[in-house]
Amino acid sequence: MKLYDCATAPSPRRVRVFMAEKGIEIETIQVDLSSGEQFSEAYKAINPLGEVPLLQLDDGTTISQVNAICRYLEELYPDNPLHGRTPLERALVESANNQAMMNGFMAGAEALRNTVPGMKNRAMPGPHNYSQIPELAERGLQRIDNYFSDLEAHFASNQYMVNDYFSVADISVLVFVDFAKWVKKRVPEDHKNLARWYQQVSQRPSAKA
Amino acid sequence: MKLYDCATAPSPRRVRVFMAEKGIEIETIQVDLSSGEQFSEAYKAINPLGEVPLLQLDDGTTISQVNAICRYLEELYPDNPLHGRTPLERALVESANNQAMMNGFMAGAEALRNTVPGMKNRAMPGPHNYSQIPELAERGLQRIDNYFSDLEAHFASNQYMVNDYFSVADISVLVFVDFAKWVKKRVPEDHKNLARWYQQVSQRPSAKA
Repeated sequence: MKLYDCATAPSPRRVRVFMAEKGIEIETIQVDLSSGEQFSEAYKAINPLGEVPLLQLDDGTTISQVNAICRYLEELYPDNPLHGRTPLERALVESANNQAMMNGFMAGAEALRNTVPGMKNRAMPGPHNYSQIPELAERGLQRIDNYFSDLEAHFASNQYMVNDYFSVADISVLVFVDFAKWVKKRVPEDHKNLARWYQQVSQRPSAKA
Repeated sequence: MKLYDCATAPSPRRVRVFMAEKGIEIETIQVDLSSGEQFSEAYKAINPLGEVPLLQLDDGTTISQVNAICRYLEELYPDNPLHGRTPLERALVESANNQAMMNGFMAGAEALRNTVPGMKNRAMPGPHNYSQIPELAERGLQRIDNYFSDLEAHFASNQYMVNDYFSVADISVLVFVDFAKWVKKRVPEDHKNLARWYQQVSQRPSAKA
């Protein structure tokens, strides 16, 4: 099994932090997004979507998308479950993780991809090209502010994204908060609860992944 | 257990089709999105996100987000699994379902919400207001065309979204194809494989849900 990764990119970091939490070590191959290696014929033969992360099994089968890779790894390495321990907890983790993707990650991607000169025709990941929309970048920044304030309200009465249980949803939000710095958005000073949570999860050894 | 639903809306339809496939019948309460009932104080006390679908358990706990609701119901009613039967199949279903959300559903929502006069300040679902961006509506339409062509290529060599196994990913794509009609996008005539799949899944009794 091999993980196609890019050490500097936020999406594959979600998988790396997940693996670090569970003590999973697998072969990792770096794909250099900064030089556009994901669009090379060699890589597109492996992943036609031109994206990382990608998990490739020994028989050549590939699994794309962060959530799918993490779920597959969780089935192979069930100790220390990060998707929930009961049906209800699993549902609440899925819900929180989904919202982290839609309200956090995507907002960051909108803000970044619609402004950076190097992504002129690449306002979205994947095989199709889309032009940048400056208004969408602005809306992405507003959405980050709103998600920060939603998280602040949440952490006023919850230790983690789902009650007192550390899960993949915390990993997603941790990686989102660090990703937001790419578009110069930091947790506002008066968001004491979010700052407390961020401090706590950033200090876990897995956060270095 | 109660499902807060809106009979005319695409997101809750994904849950309804899922329940119909599995023969699950639970109490359903209609929330009238056309009159803005989701923003009423009464409904926001139940779901502060102001969204449907929402599953409310007998102890009052609520589960938001289509994928979280369907996963919870699958745990309660494990017969006829629709999230996969093996670890690999479950990963492939998750991956395909995720892409259906990002490339299908969201594209449809972008096209609709950024043009309809009644959604002037409601370009995104959820508790925050965002102005419409006409260019994003146009991009949504382009994205629908591209996803149709990706699906056409996929169905040239696959019966369903994941090999020959009918799953939640097929439900998501079915509901997306019908949702696309709201923005006047129909499966193009030369997309014979996608049309064959659509014909097949639309004829399942669950499609009426």
